[in-house]
Amino acid sequence: MQHFEPIAFQQTDVTGGFWAEKQKLIRDVTIHAVHDRFADTGRFQAFQCSWTEGSDEPKPHIFWDSDIAKWIESAAYLLQKAPDAALERQIEAVIDRIEQNQWDDGYFNIYFTVAEPEGRFKNRDCHELYCLGHLIEAAVAYYNATGRDRFLKILDRYIDLVIRVFTVERSAAFTTPGHEEIELALFRLYRLRGDKKYLDLAMFFLNERGKHGEGLTSWCNMRYNQSHLPVRQQHTAEGHCVRACYLYSAMADAAKETGDAELFDACKALFDDITQRKMYVTGGIGSSHCGEAFTVPFDLPNDTAYAETCASIALAMFADRMKLLELDGKYADTVELEYYNGILAGLSLDGKAFFYENPLEINLADRTRHTSVNDRDRLPITQRLEVFDCSCCPPNVTRCIASLGGSLYSVDGDRVCVHQFLSNRASFDGLQLEMQTNYPLDGKVRLSVQGGKGKTLCVRVPGWCRKADFSAPYTLQRGYAMIAIPADTFTLDVDFWMAPTFITAHPAVRADAGKAALQYGPLIYCMEGVDNGADLFDLVIDAAAPADIRFDSFFGANTVTLQGTRTANAADAPLYQQTLTPQRARVPVTFVPYYAFANRGESDMAVWFRCQA
Amino acid sequence: MQHFEPIAFQQTDVTGGFWAEKQKLIRDVTIHAVHDRFADTGRFQAFQCSWTEGSDEPKPHIFWDSDIAKWIESAAYLLQKAPDAALERQIEAVIDRIEQNQWDDGYFNIYFTVAEPEGRFKNRDCHELYCLGHLIEAAVAYYNATGRDRFLKILDRYIDLVIRVFTVERSAAFTTPGHEEIELALFRLYRLRGDKKYLDLAMFFLNERGKHGEGLTSWCNMRYNQSHLPVRQQHTAEGHCVRACYLYSAMADAAKETGDAELFDACKALFDDITQRKMYVTGGIGSSHCGEAFTVPFDLPNDTAYAETCASIALAMFADRMKLLELDGKYADTVELEYYNGILAGLSLDGKAFFYENPLEINLADRTRHTSVNDRDRLPITQRLEVFDCSCCPPNVTRCIASLGGSLYSVDGDRVCVHQFLSNRASFDGLQLEMQTNYPLDGKVRLSVQGGKGKTLCVRVPGWCRKADFSAPYTLQRGYAMIAIPADTFTLDVDFWMAPTFITAHPAVRADAGKAALQYGPLIYCMEGVDNGADLFDLVIDAAAPADIRFDSFFGANTVTLQGTRTANAADAPLYQQTLTPQRARVPVTFVPYYAFANRGESDMAVWFRCQA
Repeated sequence: MQHFEPIAFQQTDVTGGFWAEKQKLIRDVTIHAVHDRFADTGRFQAFQCSWTEGSDEPKPHIFWDSDIAKWIESAAYLLQKAPDAALERQIEAVIDRIEQNQWDDGYFNIYFTVAEPEGRFKNRDCHELYCLGHLIEAAVAYYNATGRDRFLKILDRYIDLVIRVFTVERSAAFTTPGHEEIELALFRLYRLRGDKKYLDLAMFFLNERGKHGEGLTSWCNMRYNQSHLPVRQQHTAEGHCVRACYLYSAMADAAKETGDAELFDACKALFDDITQRKMYVTGGIGSSHCGEAFTVPFDLPNDTAYAETCASIALAMFADRMKLLELDGKYADTVELEYYNGILAGLSLDGKAFFYENPLEINLADRTRHTSVNDRDRLPITQRLEVFDCSCCPPNVTRCIASLGGSLYSVDGDRVCVHQFLSNRASFDGLQLEMQTNYPLDGKVRLSVQGGKGKTLCVRVPGWCRKADFSAPYTLQRGYAMIAIPADTFTLDVDFWMAPTFITAHPAVRADAGKAALQYGPLIYCMEGVDNGADLFDLVIDAAAPADIRFDSFFGANTVTLQGTRTANAADAPLYQQTLTPQRARVPVTFVPYYAFANRGESDMAVWFRCQA
Repeated sequence: MQHFEPIAFQQTDVTGGFWAEKQKLIRDVTIHAVHDRFADTGRFQAFQCSWTEGSDEPKPHIFWDSDIAKWIESAAYLLQKAPDAALERQIEAVIDRIEQNQWDDGYFNIYFTVAEPEGRFKNRDCHELYCLGHLIEAAVAYYNATGRDRFLKILDRYIDLVIRVFTVERSAAFTTPGHEEIELALFRLYRLRGDKKYLDLAMFFLNERGKHGEGLTSWCNMRYNQSHLPVRQQHTAEGHCVRACYLYSAMADAAKETGDAELFDACKALFDDITQRKMYVTGGIGSSHCGEAFTVPFDLPNDTAYAETCASIALAMFADRMKLLELDGKYADTVELEYYNGILAGLSLDGKAFFYENPLEINLADRTRHTSVNDRDRLPITQRLEVFDCSCCPPNVTRCIASLGGSLYSVDGDRVCVHQFLSNRASFDGLQLEMQTNYPLDGKVRLSVQGGKGKTLCVRVPGWCRKADFSAPYTLQRGYAMIAIPADTFTLDVDFWMAPTFITAHPAVRADAGKAALQYGPLIYCMEGVDNGADLFDLVIDAAAPADIRFDSFFGANTVTLQGTRTANAADAPLYQQTLTPQRARVPVTFVPYYAFANRGESDMAVWFRCQA
């Protein structure tokens, strides 16, 4: 196990390019859109704790605290980079209400306060500790942004209550949270404040998990919420994907804070199990809506994919932590894959609407197949919505994109690791770094370093990249180019060659058998019916034909046009015929970035396609 | 519209070969197995009408009358060909009970008599007329076999009640049956007895259908039970497949009996809509368990296929009637396809167990994918069972195989049509026919005709056959070879060349895109995991390599071994890799008849496979 320290979000500034545009969208549009929809649906009002049975006010859901907490956390990241008095007032107003409605003993939870005051800490499935975890993350971010600790202090009283109830009195009806989140939040708070009580509580929840027979209910087995085994014995990713990856993130935090090798080994096994057996090519995880869960290895159906936006965020969080424990390019590769694909697909190009589920295939003809309603199959929605009943994803996307700067660098002694490629300025450990790049439009990256003489730059070579040119000598180690910095003023030019690349899946992935996916740089592409007509599955791409790559300002990225064929005279084809080679016609086939699918109306879509080598 | 007369089951005798073996199995095993399971489950006892609330006796289901009726019909076909005193006693015992429990006004229905005596003719979904229809078919078959008309007379009183309640008083709560069947039964009775009241009642139900806004409930739309349009306006196959094809069979009967050209046109359109847009390559129909129904054109998923055995029987019945209205090989081709594939798959090789649903693909790995029970997807069972709660298929299979001799010939004036190929003797219209063949093991057929000089033999050339040799001159017309019979003693030798043939599907069939199916003669083949290992979808068949065809006594048919490839070193393969051409290893691939799948334990299975031209 290695010990890298992350370079915090506060120490980097995104200065331009693809992600600067996305962060501007979050600041200008999305943060307000999420706020307004949460206001419309009563989520802000709910913090007044004024709901009563029979009142006109909507009854709070058990996870509304966390929705607003993630919105606050997102807003705090924006505040960190630029003042915004209105945003700050909105946050302070929520904190006021939390303070006003906190119980004398420190407890705070909207739902239980108004709907089930006798039900505190009695139902493991009711997200109380999950909500507290998100409030902690929000309070940490807000403290970092403003230096004000009122929110932290409020929560500290609640945390003390949790410590007493769960670890001293052991009077709660359960031992560990039904939905993990508080664990990683406590590690975050511990790193901010240094108080060992946070570490101890986090370790308590980790260490007790899987030891109490809790987790089994009528509607799920114990894998659903990772309660089937003690955490150090969990080596395959199981159950609800967001729960799982929040847990694994906390396990990685614990390994880092305590040096626990067993936890590190479990994390490595879990990471490989996910990324080598249970992850879509887009980074999506969760092969079934049933339990929003991991299923069995290589089970990756495209049209019914769950692939929740939050699950991609959670896997990025896990991967981003793993890169601190082991310098292996696969971790930051996964972070990159998620940001450009699995996560970004969750947000519409106009910044206002969201996918909860991110399928890899849409066939609109399927949507009208049933004459009866009994037990009909379930398919993800085909257009993004502005808000959901379970609206965890929207504020998770905003906090994730707003805080991307925290994933760029890490250090360990003389090693300075560069994990992600986007134009930014950073300052840490006596170094001044500036990165200029059009990534992901092309692979050219210029990195200027001041004050680094004698240190080693460890620059990730993306897993998708088959050929890279460096302006300085380097050696390659597990996905990183190691470059000795020769002088205090040093400029490194790197060119990660980009070319349309065809990807095939493991032979046990039934859904992708005989098919390929298209990658260009870090972006996974898809075909849409709006460009390519119906029955996308009839298209066969000619992999040998030249590709036409063009920047498209609508998508903010390149589109790729390939050559292919489709059945000629399809209208006249019989249902079955005795030929393997029906006549085919040549057609151009347009691919757009997967993250941008479903931005031009309802359309068929496919990531995987038939391809002739 | 043409007007062929069928040659009845009573006028033909199956003398050997494939179907004689199957009929022997029905006689020796299946008829008794179905009887015993129906006895175990209380279906025979139910005819005592002794059930009361709270008694130990199982409560009768609304369709148990029809289960026993189809068993009686099957037994009657066996009795017709060979005496069996025990079977006859079992049948007579049921008729005794029907007679004892018939209401004074003629009504008979187990369920309503004991469970809801006030509910007669009030609920369109409760199968009363459907049950009567099957009782009529049983009584007709029993009369043909024994010459005894007691059963017919009992039912005649019930039919008179139905005529009064539905057509005179119009006092029933619905106008037309929720599950069609009685219509085609009434045509059958009309042809036996000649009493126009049967024809009138059948036409009443046909003519009133789709005119009363009945059919829509909370759980289905009006297409579900073909109530969305008057029958002459129904040109696309909709809703529950068995209901649909029983209706279409009756419409074809009506066209034949009344010469109604509009009905004939509707039947032609419906037949083409099914066979050119909504039928599996095995003849299976019903693309979804949801409503057990037709869905949208070209929607033919293989692993979730419903393809109910009864639906294949119903389509064979429809096709068999259509061949009397129009001499076109497509009708008898469909009958053949169903018998050898869609229907026969419903019966285990040992004759004791049945499939209700007949999927075209099984992937056992899918079966354990869920950690939660909520809204999990539904897949057909993988092993045949001896009885079901809804056990319509078993006695439908027995009656269907036992009466196959009724589908062989038809006549119109001097034309003698030969539709199916199996060793048999037949005698009609002064002709003596004898057919000798090993079909479907090979395509050689010898037909000896006595007394036919001057007539024209119309011998179907199977749709699967690309080359046929005839020992006499012929002209080809719509799938039939027309041969003038030159003398009163005439022997025709035909050889339908058989070779393994690859079939591809219409480009709009997503489930089969890029795939082929294998046919050899009338049999569709499948790959099973038990022969070919896991991940059948990884196999790519080399269509150009030679095939090894061998008779296998376990299957009673040929197996076909082809050459193919599968991924080499699959265990070491990454989840995703940047190559279109991972290394592949050559392997032999064994195909067995589709009808015989799942007879060697639980196994993966696939009809459609990847194939290199």
